Amino acid sequence: MLDLSLCARAQYVNIDRIRLSIDNGPYDAVIALAPENVPYFGGFYNMDLRLLPERMHIVVWPKGGDPTFIAVQRRAENMPGSGGTFVKDMRGYKGEGLDSMRVLEEVLRDRGLTEGRLGFEGRWFPGAHLVDIKRRLPKADFVDAYAFLESIRVIKSEAEIAVLTRAANITCDAIDSAFKAARPGNSEREISARIQYEMLRNGIEMVTAPLLASGDRSGYWHGMALDRPVELGKVLKVDIGGTIDGYYSDIARTAVMGKATPWQRDVHAKLTEVKHRIVDAIKPGVTAGEVAKIGEQTYDRLGLEFKWFILGHNIGLGLHEEPSLYPWVTESFKPGMTLMIEVGYNDDYPKESFHVEDLILVEPGGARYLTDATRHERIWELGV
Amino acid sequence: MLDLSLCARAQYVNIDRIRLSIDNGPYDAVIALAPENVPYFGGFYNMDLRLLPERMHIVVWPKGGDPTFIAVQRRAENMPGSGGTFVKDMRGYKGEGLDSMRVLEEVLRDRGLTEGRLGFEGRWFPGAHLVDIKRRLPKADFVDAYAFLESIRVIKSEAEIAVLTRAANITCDAIDSAFKAARPGNSEREISARIQYEMLRNGIEMVTAPLLASGDRSGYWHGMALDRPVELGKVLKVDIGGTIDGYYSDIARTAVMGKATPWQRDVHAKLTEVKHRIVDAIKPGVTAGEVAKIGEQTYDRLGLEFKWFILGHNIGLGLHEEPSLYPWVTESFKPGMTLMIEVGYNDDYPKESFHVEDLILVEPGGARYLTDATRHERIWELGV
Repeated sequence: MLDLSLCARAQYVNIDRIRLSIDNGPYDAVIALAPENVPYFGGFYNMDLRLLPERMHIVVWPKGGDPTFIAVQRRAENMPGSGGTFVKDMRGYKGEGLDSMRVLEEVLRDRGLTEGRLGFEGRWFPGAHLVDIKRRLPKADFVDAYAFLESIRVIKSEAEIAVLTRAANITCDAIDSAFKAARPGNSEREISARIQYEMLRNGIEMVTAPLLASGDRSGYWHGMALDRPVELGKVLKVDIGGTIDGYYSDIARTAVMGKATPWQRDVHAKLTEVKHRIVDAIKPGVTAGEVAKIGEQTYDRLGLEFKWFILGHNIGLGLHEEPSLYPWVTESFKPGMTLMIEVGYNDDYPKESFHVEDLILVEPGGARYLTDATRHERIWELGV
Repeated sequence: MLDLSLCARAQYVNIDRIRLSIDNGPYDAVIALAPENVPYFGGFYNMDLRLLPERMHIVVWPKGGDPTFIAVQRRAENMPGSGGTFVKDMRGYKGEGLDSMRVLEEVLRDRGLTEGRLGFEGRWFPGAHLVDIKRRLPKADFVDAYAFLESIRVIKSEAEIAVLTRAANITCDAIDSAFKAARPGNSEREISARIQYEMLRNGIEMVTAPLLASGDRSGYWHGMALDRPVELGKVLKVDIGGTIDGYYSDIARTAVMGKATPWQRDVHAKLTEVKHRIVDAIKPGVTAGEVAKIGEQTYDRLGLEFKWFILGHNIGLGLHEEPSLYPWVTESFKPGMTLMIEVGYNDDYPKESFHVEDLILVEPGGARYLTDATRHERIWELGV
């Protein structure tokens, strides 16, 4: 069976939710190896899931049964020394090549699933490995189950909401702390390093997306800090996140070095207004597309051209989970979803770009902020 | 044709090496989408290659021809605002699903490659996408070309050696700086945060592997820093790396908080000796397996049981490139290879574990260190 006492991250594990979903789902078994699914379906997390994906960790969970965990031999033999898992049936493979598929075949044969309908992660399962396991099990039917697995993860437990809130607020506080210390003449790199230092010393285990750029480069898509001073009067745009126990934060803030111009103040104020109207509009049963349209209409109503693309996305063990806030999305919000709401303007080099992003929780009556958004109602003026 | 002036990382680009290899290689075209291959074969690098692999960037390079770059529409339209590429034929796709494969089919049809032998990255190309492109081009022959593409990258240019040296030495210096500042009572997290801060403010664009653990947890495989003090008399093991322009550093150091015991000093001294003997043994033409055996024999000769697994690996845009130093590896060293040589002991929870790792360059006459290994000949005693 399962043993939660062996799993260092037991507090996040939702065995009942997983069982119910898989037992009532359309697959005879699901095969999870994506770095966002292994911690959820296997209880195991280590940063090497993303750093070295060639050392695959695979959870096989059959309908009505208990899971098996497949890992490289060294990890399989020393699970307690890597954080542990609640899965008791542990199998090891050799090397970093296709031997993992020999073991996967063995597991599926043991479970009588050689002719089953097997859910795999279409966007993660490596092509060569898929070809190999199909050759080994020619009668099995392999079907993309990524969206199915994600849909199980997308409603968060209390422990998950708590860790996401903590990660987001450590990130917010780190940005504010570095903003308070920022002075004219500081380089992008100095400010970025200070934000990351504050994140790390306050509990973020790893910074995963250190984006920071100023002035004309603020419109550079996913620009990283350079050794150049933030110019007086120019915007400084930060979009940064990290993880705690594998759960992501993803916070964006925009400030100005020195005094802001009326135009900069105005754009930021309008974006803040759009963000609040989006959060107001989110309720269980409303679709992400409807809310995205309300967001775009609010830009329009405020006289700010919509020069942006995404207005938000779910977040958890995945950085971008569904639903995303695009006008065409028909998925509706549900209580327990945690989303980043992000508004921006002009994300297009070499124009000055603005970006603000906060974490919210969907509750039965509507959505509420989990980050303190009040400190950035007006654009920050650094070093003033 | 190609235009290097549009590419922010032109100094690393080896067009002649790529053309020669592909034109003389066994594929009618190669299709590269792995985060370590897109910068090399497409000249484009952004941290989102690893952060958001679902937004695929694909370089198609036909034998005897010029490459095409396929990216999500927004990036395809604004390449200069994302770092640029030397590839002039740019195609966009919509969304994050299989529309990329529609565009890939189009490119391959345009090039007359519908019945070609097409090299794809077996361990990276997503399974669902491979199924889709095979369905679209049923007469094409898809063959795993990961090792082929890696073999082109594995010999470094002068600019690549320079950036790898810089990244490695910034990392070494950051560790030393944090070690010098470390005092009894400091937590693992404080020391880890200081190392990362020093790395970031001195030029590392992103920390990718912040591993640090002390005492019994030093044997935890890929353990990360916790909020607990490093105990007096216990080892502190660091294995940390980051990137500059996508090129990795990967440095390991072991110290003791306070005075080291004779056993700790002895193990560290023996490991240092093993490392030097490995570096002495590396020469063009010698196989990685032969050198790994010399490493294991040196443990034996010094009376230190071989309780470790890997003795080194190539490094570049990939963190672990081939060859790796395992006894069974038959690939031989070549001038221009850059490798991490890593020695260790007892990587097994809950035993105290040791790890030392340095960067070397293979030259015609042998190997030499690119990191300053002299500062860690003896184990560091922190706060003494």
